[in-house]
Amino acid sequence: MTVQGWLHRRRTLKSVVFLVLRDRSGLVQAVVTDPEAMAAAGGHPEETVLQITGIVTANPQAPGGAEVTSPAVTALSGPAEAPPFDLYRPSVAATLPTILDHAPVALRHPLLRAPHAISAVSVAGFRTTLDALGFTEIHTPKVVASATESGANVFGIDWFGTRAYLAQSPQFFKQAMVGVFERVYETGPVFRAEPHDTARHLAQYTSLDAELGFVTDHREVMAVLREVLAGMTAAVERHAGEECALLDVELPNIPERIPEIHFTRAQELLAAHTGEDPRGEPDLAPAHERWLSRWALREYGSEFLFVTGYPMVKRPFYTHPEPGRAEYSNSFDLLFRGLELVTGGQRLHRHEDYLAALAARGESPEPYAGYLAAFRHGMPPHGGFALGLERWTTRLTGADNIRRATLFPRDLHRLTP
Amino acid sequence: MTVQGWLHRRRTLKSVVFLVLRDRSGLVQAVVTDPEAMAAAGGHPEETVLQITGIVTANPQAPGGAEVTSPAVTALSGPAEAPPFDLYRPSVAATLPTILDHAPVALRHPLLRAPHAISAVSVAGFRTTLDALGFTEIHTPKVVASATESGANVFGIDWFGTRAYLAQSPQFFKQAMVGVFERVYETGPVFRAEPHDTARHLAQYTSLDAELGFVTDHREVMAVLREVLAGMTAAVERHAGEECALLDVELPNIPERIPEIHFTRAQELLAAHTGEDPRGEPDLAPAHERWLSRWALREYGSEFLFVTGYPMVKRPFYTHPEPGRAEYSNSFDLLFRGLELVTGGQRLHRHEDYLAALAARGESPEPYAGYLAAFRHGMPPHGGFALGLERWTTRLTGADNIRRATLFPRDLHRLTP
Repeated sequence: MTVQGWLHRRRTLKSVVFLVLRDRSGLVQAVVTDPEAMAAAGGHPEETVLQITGIVTANPQAPGGAEVTSPAVTALSGPAEAPPFDLYRPSVAATLPTILDHAPVALRHPLLRAPHAISAVSVAGFRTTLDALGFTEIHTPKVVASATESGANVFGIDWFGTRAYLAQSPQFFKQAMVGVFERVYETGPVFRAEPHDTARHLAQYTSLDAELGFVTDHREVMAVLREVLAGMTAAVERHAGEECALLDVELPNIPERIPEIHFTRAQELLAAHTGEDPRGEPDLAPAHERWLSRWALREYGSEFLFVTGYPMVKRPFYTHPEPGRAEYSNSFDLLFRGLELVTGGQRLHRHEDYLAALAARGESPEPYAGYLAAFRHGMPPHGGFALGLERWTTRLTGADNIRRATLFPRDLHRLTP
Repeated sequence: MTVQGWLHRRRTLKSVVFLVLRDRSGLVQAVVTDPEAMAAAGGHPEETVLQITGIVTANPQAPGGAEVTSPAVTALSGPAEAPPFDLYRPSVAATLPTILDHAPVALRHPLLRAPHAISAVSVAGFRTTLDALGFTEIHTPKVVASATESGANVFGIDWFGTRAYLAQSPQFFKQAMVGVFERVYETGPVFRAEPHDTARHLAQYTSLDAELGFVTDHREVMAVLREVLAGMTAAVERHAGEECALLDVELPNIPERIPEIHFTRAQELLAAHTGEDPRGEPDLAPAHERWLSRWALREYGSEFLFVTGYPMVKRPFYTHPEPGRAEYSNSFDLLFRGLELVTGGQRLHRHEDYLAALAARGESPEPYAGYLAAFRHGMPPHGGFALGLERWTTRLTGADNIRRATLFPRDLHRLTP
C-alpha cells in the first residue's frame, strides 16, 4: 500500500524509527527498522510531505489501529522551517494571535481544523434542506451603489471612479428575487465595517440567507428556519461525527416546534425574575438574552428560543408591523445557547407601505429607488432570515472566539494572511 | 384548491374572464363566469398577486392542462405600474439594457428566468460531484492586503483607513487550504476591475474554484474537472429540464476522456490549416480557440477540448513548469463551444521554487510574504482550476451576452439595481 501525507511525528529509538503520517482521514504509523532506511527517515523533520509504500499490518496500539512495515519512504516536499507550535501534540500550545498569523500551517492541527469541517457540512445541510423545500440558490452583487441596511458601518470602494459600497447583506436582492423564484437562498460573504474589537464581531462573515414568498406572517419563516436548523444539525452529526467527538461537541436537540416568546412577555419575565426592569427598552441586552436562553432550557428543555415582536423602532424600515399593534413587528430573533444566532421576520410587500414607512421615519425614498422598484410590480407577502455561519459554528463548538470558526478572519486589525 | 401567484395574463371576453396565474411551477388558468366576479376580476392589472380558490378541472386546451372554475379571487398586492414590457408574451420585447434596468420584474419572464434556474442547479452539481470526491467547502476573504493574481484590474477599498483590495480570486487561500484539507472548493464572488465593455466581461462574477493535493501533474486535475462537468450537466438535465426545453438548450456530451492538445501542437495545426502562423505567439487568439473547438468537434465529436502546456510567460508565477521543457507549463485551458471556460493547472509546491520563480520574473518576494508562508511548512504537489459560472451558463444557453446569465450584473457602467 502507498500512503501520502504530512510527517505528523517522528520518533527515533535505538533500533527503530516511527513515522506517523497525517492526512485528512487521520493518522497512520510507519515502522522503519532497516538501518540504512532508519538513517534516511530520521532526517525528515515534522511536516515533511512523504509518500510511504509498504506492508500494512494490524496493530491495535498504533495510531489508527494499523501500521506500515518495511516502508519505502520518499519525501515529496520538505518544510523550510518548523511550525510556530508543535502540530503533533494533542493540545494546542499557541495563542489565538499566533494561530491566526500562521493560519495555513496552524489549521493543520486536528483541533483547529475541526471547526471548519463542521462549518462546511453545516452549509451543506442548510442548502440540502432548502433545496428540498423548493428554494432556488442565487448569487447577488457584493458591491452596491448605496447602503440599504443602515448608513453606518459600510466599506467604501472606488468603482471605476464612482463611490460604491460593499454589501452589508443581500437583503434587497433576495427580496426582489422572491418575485422571480418565490423561494431563494444565498450563502455568501457580507461586510460590516464594525469598529468593535470583540470575540464575536467580524468585518466579513458568511451569511446564510433565505427568503420566501406567500407567507401568512413571520411564523412560516420560523417554521422553515426550524427545518434548516434540523438539517444543519443532522448534516453535522452524519458527516462530522469525528470532529464533534474531538471537540466534545454536544449537538442540540431541535424541538418539533421551537418555543417562542413575545418581546413584551420576555420583558415582563425579566422584570419579574432578574431584579431589573427592562420594560420600555426597545431591545434586549446580551445578559437578558442569556437569561432567556436559560429560561427556555429550564421551561421547555430547548437550547433554542424565538423572541418575536421586537419594537419597530429597533428593526429596519422594511419590517412588517404586527397587525393591530403597529409599534411591534412581525419579526424574530433566534437565541441559541444564550446568543442571538438568527434575525428574521416578515417584510413589507406593498409599494405604498414602503413609501409610508420611509415617510414615517422622515427618510426620503430617493436613495432607495432601486430597492423600491421591485415592489412597484406586485410582490407577495414574504419574509426571511439571515444566519451567521461563523456564529453558528462558534456556538456549536463552544469556541471562545468567532475567529476560531473563520479560516482567515478579517476585522478591525486583521487583513492578513 | 387554492393557488397563489402573479396574474400573468387577463383576457376579458363577453361572458367570461380568463385569469392566467403564474407561479414558479408554471401557469394555471382560472375561468370567471359569474357576472359580479367578472367585474371584479376584470379590474386586476397583470402582475397583481392573487389568491384563487376554486374547483380544478382538467382542460387539455388550458395552459398547464387544467383550469380553476368558480374561482374566489383575492388580490394580495397590486402593482403600482405596468412592467416595462409584457411579461405574458412568449417572446421578450425588450432590449438588454431595459431588462437589466428592470431586473426584479423583467426576470419574472420565463425566458429570462430560465438561465438563472440552470445556473443554480449547475452549482449544485459542482458541489455534489466534489463532495463525493472528498472535497471540503471553504469560505475565504474577499478583501486582501495585496493583489496576488496581477497588479492590474483590482478594486481598491478603504479598510478602516488602510488600503486594501477586493480579491481577484481565492487562489492563495485555496492553495493554502490544500495543506489542511487536501481537497477544497469554493463557490463565491471574485472581482476584476475590467475596463472592457464586452459581452463576456463582468466586474463581479461567481468563480467555481477547486484545488487538490497529491497529484502527479495537471492531468489529475483535468480528470476531476471532467467529473465536475459531467456532474453539472447531469444536474441541469435532471433538475432544469423544463428550462432547457424553453431555451432550446442542447446539453453537451461529456466524453469519458475529454480530448486534449498541447499548445505547440495546436499552433502547428493552426499554421497548417488556417492560413495564419501563430507559432511564436505566447497565447491563443479568440479566433484560434474557435477554430480548435470546431476541430475537436470534427475530430473527436467533443464540444470540449483541453489545450495544455501554455507557455510559462503567459501563466501566473505559481504555475508548475513542464518537466524537461521549462518554457511550457503543466497548465490547461478548457475550451467549450469555442470559448475558454476553465483555466487550471499544477502549481509550484516547494518554497524554494516559489522564490526562484519570483526571482526569475524580477519580482521581490516581499508583497507575497503571506502567500509564500503557506509553502514554508511542507506542501504536496497540487493543482486546481477555476470555472466561471456565468460563462458556463452563457455558453450552455447560447446567450448573446453574459449579462443574461447574471441576476444583477456589475460592470464598468452598471452598479444598479
